[in-house]
Amino acid sequence: MKPTVTAFANSPDQGRGLARDMQVRWALEEVCQPYDVRLVSFKEMKQPAHLALQPFGQIPTYEDGDLVLFESGAIVLHIAQTHDGLLPKDANARARAIAWMFDAHSTIEPPIVDLDIAEMLEDDKPWGKERLPLVEDRIRGRLKPLSVRLGDADWLDGDFSAGDLLMIGVLRRLAGSGILEEFPNLAAYVARGEARPAFQRAFEAQLTVFKAASGGR
Amino acid sequence: MKPTVTAFANSPDQGRGLARDMQVRWALEEVCQPYDVRLVSFKEMKQPAHLALQPFGQIPTYEDGDLVLFESGAIVLHIAQTHDGLLPKDANARARAIAWMFDAHSTIEPPIVDLDIAEMLEDDKPWGKERLPLVEDRIRGRLKPLSVRLGDADWLDGDFSAGDLLMIGVLRRLAGSGILEEFPNLAAYVARGEARPAFQRAFEAQLTVFKAASGGR
Repeated sequence: MKPTVTAFANSPDQGRGLARDMQVRWALEEVCQPYDVRLVSFKEMKQPAHLALQPFGQIPTYEDGDLVLFESGAIVLHIAQTHDGLLPKDANARARAIAWMFDAHSTIEPPIVDLDIAEMLEDDKPWGKERLPLVEDRIRGRLKPLSVRLGDADWLDGDFSAGDLLMIGVLRRLAGSGILEEFPNLAAYVARGEARPAFQRAFEAQLTVFKAASGGR
Repeated sequence: MKPTVTAFANSPDQGRGLARDMQVRWALEEVCQPYDVRLVSFKEMKQPAHLALQPFGQIPTYEDGDLVLFESGAIVLHIAQTHDGLLPKDANARARAIAWMFDAHSTIEPPIVDLDIAEMLEDDKPWGKERLPLVEDRIRGRLKPLSVRLGDADWLDGDFSAGDLLMIGVLRRLAGSGILEEFPNLAAYVARGEARPAFQRAFEAQLTVFKAASGGR
């Protein structure tokens, strides 16, 4: 039986793979687990049937038999813990890979989401433009030590893991800001993730949904 | 052999248990695991010896034999996975408890940290006061569905779990803002967590450190 993932019927990211179903799709592709997708509209996301699965009215959700999960990080961890290929076998290395998963969402992502909020929701405020450099500097404050830690390694800690998957998913949100390019080893790290066949299959799958919703434009 | 946790030599939270070692201490107390604490100064946190353990120069870290971990969420999950008492035995319930751990740090905490940043780092900016209601409303936007989901239950999903531990740790950062009190079931939920003997032992332990550092004031 295949798990079912929910995704935007019409993603606001214009098919750039920045919605959070992308990381779940990517994880499922890495472990070669086929899945079904159920598309939900913005209206459906806020209705009781979806809120029963996802109390915040967001995507993605993950349904597999009796199990219902939300939070993309938790879904990716569940996939990684129930399939081979996304976490090391060694117990200590496994714990460290999971630490990078939390790090991606707890330490690296918040200032990056703040930049999205500043640009999308506060752009028309009196402080809109003046405040941006502060927010961008907070991102740099997190990327600099991350860049130092990565150094010239391919991945954060040994082989590619679910920690890299979430971290690259978070860093991809910086596309277009120019900030990622200030850290060439992080830009190369993201490119390395995007070059993985599993990433590309996941990206194509979400892009196909967006193209269909937007009438093939 | 006891694990070692790092904590602030002189916590900026004035002993209120808002630094992130608190959740690690609480988890260790819940599972009755004795631990050592190594205090680090702000200066030491940014030096190579600590950066080798924690690339962002923060606390806490967790050292147990050959294992070095950072990210409080990941440390709490590691403790929960290697001791009984913080995660359900049933596989599906366990995955759901872990989802609440990610939810605490990925969905609930970011707007709460934004309020801290707005109050501490942007208070003297021209937009300082005017922007606060926006940030507070984003917190309400997350607390309202959380409050609906909790309803009149004691904990988020069955028995107390590591998911509740992290969620209560995050919600405690709202103390003094008045926002938590707008959601009486969430305020009662936090009080329920704080009443746990393990919480109280952890709280006393960090308070003792702060009192000693501040000369018993």
